[in-house]
Amino acid sequence: MNDLVAVTVKGVYMVGTPSGPAPLVLLCDGDRALPIYVGIAEAASIECALHRETTPRPMTHDLVISLLESLDAKITWVLIDDLNDGIYYARLIIQMDGVQRELDARPSDCIALALRANAEILVRKSVIAKAAVDKNEIEEIIPLDL
Amino acid sequence: MNDLVAVTVKGVYMVGTPSGPAPLVLLCDGDRALPIYVGIAEAASIECALHRETTPRPMTHDLVISLLESLDAKITWVLIDDLNDGIYYARLIIQMDGVQRELDARPSDCIALALRANAEILVRKSVIAKAAVDKNEIEEIIPLDL
Repeated sequence: MNDLVAVTVKGVYMVGTPSGPAPLVLLCDGDRALPIYVGIAEAASIECALHRETTPRPMTHDLVISLLESLDAKITWVLIDDLNDGIYYARLIIQMDGVQRELDARPSDCIALALRANAEILVRKSVIAKAAVDKNEIEEIIPLDL
Repeated sequence: MNDLVAVTVKGVYMVGTPSGPAPLVLLCDGDRALPIYVGIAEAASIECALHRETTPRPMTHDLVISLLESLDAKITWVLIDDLNDGIYYARLIIQMDGVQRELDARPSDCIALALRANAEILVRKSVIAKAAVDKNEIEEIIPLDL
C-alpha cells in the first residue's frame, strides 16, 4: 500500500478543450491535483454523489449500490492504478463473505461508486507522478479557489 | 406471469420532441410498440449491447455485468411494471445462491443490462395497454421499416 495515495474529490468542472467543453473531475492530494476527463453522464452522477443529492429515480450508480447491498457485498476501496496513452485505468475492489474481488473499471465509475459507498479513493503514486499538477497550474484552467 | 408480456428491443432512435431531439428506445410486442425515452448515455449503452459492440474500456453497464459475474449472481429477467405521470418504473430481478432479489430500477438500465445478460424483458400488460402504440403510428415519428 506504500505506493498508493488517498485522494479527495474536489469537484466536477466543465473546461474548454480543443474539441469543445468537457467535464473534468479533479482529485486532490495535498497541493497536487489529478485532472481526469469523464463522460457527461458520469460527471452528473459524481456531482450528485458529491453533494449527496438524490434523483427521483435511481441513477445507474445508485442501482449498483442497491445491487451490492442486496447481495451483502460492499465496495472496500477503489484504485486508479494506471495511465497509458492518456487513458486512466482503475479497479473496483469489492468484498463479499470475506472474499475480496477486483474488477477492471473506468475511474469515473469508480469515483461515482466510491462517493456513494464512502469508500476510499486511492491512486498509484506512479500515476500521480505522471499526471498530477500543482493546484496553481489548475487554477489557470479552472478559476476557482482551490 | 399471466399479466406479463415478453418484448424485444427494436432499436434506439433520436426523435424530435417539443424540447429538442431525445433518444427513444422502442420495445416491440407483435404489432404493438412501446416507446420509452431514455438518457443519452443509456441510449448509447443500449445501442452498443444491441449490436454486440464492445468499447475499449468497460461502460457502466459492462461493469455491472462483471460485478454480477464475480459474485456468482445473474440477472434472471427484468420487468417494466408501471407507468405513472409519464415515468416508467422497472425492476431488475437477480439471483444468487438460488435466492431471487428484486431491485427498483429505471427501464433504461434494465434494458441495457438485460441485453448484455441475454435476459428476458417483460412488460406488465397494464403498461402495454396504457402506452403501447400500433407500429404504423410509430412510423409517423420514426420513418423506418418496422
